[in-house]
Amino acid sequence: MSTSKTDIARRVFNHTFKLDPIVRSLLDTDFYKLLMLQMIWGLYRDVDATFSLTNRTTKVRLADEVDIDELREQLDHARTLRFSKKEMIWLAGNSFYGTKQIFAPDFLAWLEGFQLPDYELSEKDGQFELHFHGKWVETTMWEIPALAIINELRSRAAMRGLGRFTLDVLYARAKARTWEKVERLKKLPDLKISDFGTRRRHSFLWQRWCVEALKEGLGDALTGTSNVLLAMDTDLEALGTNAHELPMVAAALAEGDDALRRAPYGVLKDWQGYYGGNLLIVLPDAFGTASFLDNAPDWVADWTGFRPDSAPAIEGGEKIIDWWRAHGRDPREKLLIFSDGLDTETIEKAYRHFDGRVRMAFGWGTNLTNDFAGVAPVPLPQLTPISLVIKVSRANGRPAVKLSDNPAKAVGDRGEIARYLRVFGDEEMAEQAVVV
Amino acid sequence: MSTSKTDIARRVFNHTFKLDPIVRSLLDTDFYKLLMLQMIWGLYRDVDATFSLTNRTTKVRLADEVDIDELREQLDHARTLRFSKKEMIWLAGNSFYGTKQIFAPDFLAWLEGFQLPDYELSEKDGQFELHFHGKWVETTMWEIPALAIINELRSRAAMRGLGRFTLDVLYARAKARTWEKVERLKKLPDLKISDFGTRRRHSFLWQRWCVEALKEGLGDALTGTSNVLLAMDTDLEALGTNAHELPMVAAALAEGDDALRRAPYGVLKDWQGYYGGNLLIVLPDAFGTASFLDNAPDWVADWTGFRPDSAPAIEGGEKIIDWWRAHGRDPREKLLIFSDGLDTETIEKAYRHFDGRVRMAFGWGTNLTNDFAGVAPVPLPQLTPISLVIKVSRANGRPAVKLSDNPAKAVGDRGEIARYLRVFGDEEMAEQAVVV
Repeated sequence: MSTSKTDIARRVFNHTFKLDPIVRSLLDTDFYKLLMLQMIWGLYRDVDATFSLTNRTTKVRLADEVDIDELREQLDHARTLRFSKKEMIWLAGNSFYGTKQIFAPDFLAWLEGFQLPDYELSEKDGQFELHFHGKWVETTMWEIPALAIINELRSRAAMRGLGRFTLDVLYARAKARTWEKVERLKKLPDLKISDFGTRRRHSFLWQRWCVEALKEGLGDALTGTSNVLLAMDTDLEALGTNAHELPMVAAALAEGDDALRRAPYGVLKDWQGYYGGNLLIVLPDAFGTASFLDNAPDWVADWTGFRPDSAPAIEGGEKIIDWWRAHGRDPREKLLIFSDGLDTETIEKAYRHFDGRVRMAFGWGTNLTNDFAGVAPVPLPQLTPISLVIKVSRANGRPAVKLSDNPAKAVGDRGEIARYLRVFGDEEMAEQAVVV
Repeated sequence: MSTSKTDIARRVFNHTFKLDPIVRSLLDTDFYKLLMLQMIWGLYRDVDATFSLTNRTTKVRLADEVDIDELREQLDHARTLRFSKKEMIWLAGNSFYGTKQIFAPDFLAWLEGFQLPDYELSEKDGQFELHFHGKWVETTMWEIPALAIINELRSRAAMRGLGRFTLDVLYARAKARTWEKVERLKKLPDLKISDFGTRRRHSFLWQRWCVEALKEGLGDALTGTSNVLLAMDTDLEALGTNAHELPMVAAALAEGDDALRRAPYGVLKDWQGYYGGNLLIVLPDAFGTASFLDNAPDWVADWTGFRPDSAPAIEGGEKIIDWWRAHGRDPREKLLIFSDGLDTETIEKAYRHFDGRVRMAFGWGTNLTNDFAGVAPVPLPQLTPISLVIKVSRANGRPAVKLSDNPAKAVGDRGEIARYLRVFGDEEMAEQAVVV
């Protein structure tokens, strides 16, 4: 019965295909990349920036799990992509954050010809050395697709050789697990949550399934997705503001310690020249939140909200609330966006803790789109996500540094880290395990 | 991307098809039906027997949930089926219970022309009146396909109108739940279990998935399936011995109370004229196990095992073990087959209780192939299985009766039930809720 229904053409296609591309559109990236890109293109067009891969889960020998030639094929395929006509029309015609034409025509005209630049890839001690050299305005666009590619190649390698039935159980259990989370989150009446899981997703198709699950199960509580392609295809809001690369490059370019100290506020000035409203979200932890708050000019308190990204949610949120109060602002009119290592339990906890005291939103990443630990009917530790990042490592030839509130998340040249710690201080930094 | 891959021909086929048949083969039935059929054909060829549907879950108005015209279409389709050449060759060539040519050539020659007889269907007070009148050798074959049809039509009706996503979550959760059961049962080192879930299955495809799950997860602990078609298609053993209809018809045909009392043993004599070894399984509860054991001739203790089918597993098993001992037989050489309302917990309990004291096998039915309570992302009580049976109700014009050890499972004419209770006694019968 079932044999006669097999689509022969599809089967033949399947067993002759050469490459199953992971990234098939330049929109398959995080929305904040496009927002930042417009500003970088406007203000930092000639800056060079190198982005580099770091596997913070050092015990996982990534280059032993993922074939370097397959990785090259996928990266090469991503380099063939251009924004399609449909995509350009959508970017120009769609409203983002309630704003029409958020992207200027001249920026879009430039974007139309965009192509991912070359990469430098080698293998060393079981890890990949992967660098993207070139203009910031080009290299920045590699972060998300390159991470998505490596993470999906790792999933594919982990599942290679599994039988049809084993895979069926695996995905059934992953779906059941995700749906349980949806049912728990449904119970939080004023929840605002969005998908931030592109970079560390199990796979593109799985991310799409998760986003559909949240849309179906949470309704309006799902405010959108950071993935621009999924936002377009599923009629959701594209969400995201800005990332650490802005203060990191600004700091690397700063001449002397005073300029370094002022750099994090300078990029906020840049930003508010481009965007307003709910896009005015401060990311305070690049060089430590305590120092950032201590030295912040009063106008920073006029911004809509903060996204504490490396301190524990409750502790980090409380400090920002205190700071708003100290600056005479009412936290109930302010927004906290939590996005660091969230899962159902931490979301519930933060929600209950802050409910009624501040506006809140959750950007749910890896534990949404890559929670596969233990779902396979056979032990498959390679399905457990790892803490893989692509960060700016140099700007105009100078080392770039990120400290964060969690020293385990610090990246950059050792000497420069020491200098930054001297300039910004290491007040209230506390090492915590980095899960993802 | 996904749109261009849609198989247009299949879509067009799907939206033009008239009927999606539930039963597509006469082998889609329980194996014991074929074993009994050979004996009925040999010894009771001219006996008339009416089979009738009873919904013991009276609170469910079945005829409100299932469309009577759809039911007719499915029953009519089943009547068009014949054993195919491949099926006949397999029945003749395969070994069952280690025996070659268990079916005699003259029986198979007759079977080749077999067709399900007509049915009588109407609706009354929200329930179906469904009767199969005719020769026992024909009507007996309706029990399993008719039940499977009604149960699957009920599932289909419950799920009608659910979206693609909701269905996806529903089946994902059902699969996850089944796999959890598999993982629990894996821990019982000497478990012998088989699928007995054809009649009350959620659907044919779901039963097939469950059998594949057990095969993959339990390996040799899965001894087979009662479903002949699945046994053939998945290279498993076809399992099953005999059912209540044998003593019920024998009792109905008995002239006078003495003959009635002897009837249950008479059919065992009939049976051992046809089969041996592991097919010598006593089903003791048709008119109460206590009476059956009290009056059983000693040769019944030579049979391989018992299948207590309506007493609680542990209590029922202990009584049979005592009886074997009282008759000087070693229970460790005997076999108990449990098949009444089993689920993981009751299986584990009985396994642990009897382990090492008697050989055991489990025939897992409804809770294997139709455990859908609560799996839908929306409340869907119509997916919870009901206790639906098709039993012989008359033989040669006389009422047929079943008492069982659980008065809630008694079926038949009230006056006759009273007479049977007088003849067999109501010793140790205890009413228990009938779940499925």
